[in-house]
Amino acid sequence: MTGKLVIVGTGPGNPEQTTPQVRDAIAAGEQFFGYAPYLDRLNLRPDQRRMPSDNREEISRARAALDAASKGASVCVVSGGDPGVFAMAAAVCEAIETGPETWRRLQITVLPGVTAMLAVAARAGAPLGHDFCAISLSDNLKPWELIERRLRAVAEAGLVIALYNPISKARPWQLATAFKILREALPVTTPVIFGRAVGRPDEHFAVVPLGEADQQSADMATCVIIGSAETRIIERPGMDPLVYSPRGVGI
Amino acid sequence: MTGKLVIVGTGPGNPEQTTPQVRDAIAAGEQFFGYAPYLDRLNLRPDQRRMPSDNREEISRARAALDAASKGASVCVVSGGDPGVFAMAAAVCEAIETGPETWRRLQITVLPGVTAMLAVAARAGAPLGHDFCAISLSDNLKPWELIERRLRAVAEAGLVIALYNPISKARPWQLATAFKILREALPVTTPVIFGRAVGRPDEHFAVVPLGEADQQSADMATCVIIGSAETRIIERPGMDPLVYSPRGVGI
Repeated sequence: MTGKLVIVGTGPGNPEQTTPQVRDAIAAGEQFFGYAPYLDRLNLRPDQRRMPSDNREEISRARAALDAASKGASVCVVSGGDPGVFAMAAAVCEAIETGPETWRRLQITVLPGVTAMLAVAARAGAPLGHDFCAISLSDNLKPWELIERRLRAVAEAGLVIALYNPISKARPWQLATAFKILREALPVTTPVIFGRAVGRPDEHFAVVPLGEADQQSADMATCVIIGSAETRIIERPGMDPLVYSPRGVGI
Repeated sequence: MTGKLVIVGTGPGNPEQTTPQVRDAIAAGEQFFGYAPYLDRLNLRPDQRRMPSDNREEISRARAALDAASKGASVCVVSGGDPGVFAMAAAVCEAIETGPETWRRLQITVLPGVTAMLAVAARAGAPLGHDFCAISLSDNLKPWELIERRLRAVAEAGLVIALYNPISKARPWQLATAFKILREALPVTTPVIFGRAVGRPDEHFAVVPLGEADQQSADMATCVIIGSAETRIIERPGMDPLVYSPRGVGI
């Protein structure tokens, strides 16, 4: 018997932002593999099995999930946000490529979700309204020099930048260094948005100029969006400002 | 009396990928402004008013929506995908910034959705599993020279590239030129994904090497994802291959 494996993205955290397609896949799953806090959000039934793991064990988690599916289980691999953006879909693919031939015969489905930068951008206005990029600031899986080179290239090219994995206990200085590099390429007035747990009760949200951006405003669950030189702030009486990147530039 | 304005993203087109939050906002809306085909998907009630417009009339549509809200209506501005990604949220912000002071007092809410590149990526595997960018290929609102410069910069920096608005009747040659530029910076074997209407009955989906990528595989509703030099293809017996970008590089 051959099982199947579904990789789902539950969205930014507010259950009202989880798609019906993902909810249905969760209802149909038997075994759930994921970072423990993501599994905690699912309200699983007693007959559904939780297989939590630490957030730095992505490949071993992917292998365990594929192994369970190859034994006939209906397996659900759970990511927050979208599973294809710095999350479990790439880890599962990597495990399949380097794993036993039988894993290539499994039915694999990836169900998209609302990734963090989209939720943070919506909270702010429309900072991703023009060309933009998403860069993981984690140097666990790529050299820091490459990250620096990419930050310079995209800032000079005029792209808005969404930073994922901006900081952690094991990576305490990288975000401050990134801000320093970006200050060399962008005006100090460029809006920087810190968004964490947007739409949840523990939301943290702030907009500051790049010249004052402090890495202590972020934790590992924060998405940081740095505008381009075109990104604008609209002040509004009694309300948060709107931050947006105009659709056009140079015309 | 002051109304309110909600800007929603309905996702890639499959209603199962529209978030409950967006469905609720649509159910609560009185007047709906958007590109006609997007409004057609909403199944509005007879008491809800459709205000369709052409897809090149974003700013006048935004102004009409803001005007209706300022007269007290509960207005819903509708985008496909996510409203913050090359869609209506930036147009509404732009209209507010250049419009009457009263528009700054309106309650504006942006509700995120699953943007096209996430749905296309999920269909393919995990091509956005590493650093990536989203670039609109439309030179209606920025000079073509700037687009060329950005394509070169991001390809050389090793980012996966999602192209929005790749082609239209008024812009017939830009996508072929983009492929030509990218062939100078990337291996001809780099996977290129064409995804249109993913998850809908009229889905078109194809993966080809960059050396063979043909702009005729795209129309204006297609999202084109071009891998980086690291992006890989896993062949599978009797199934579509998996395309993914490894989480790590150079380590």
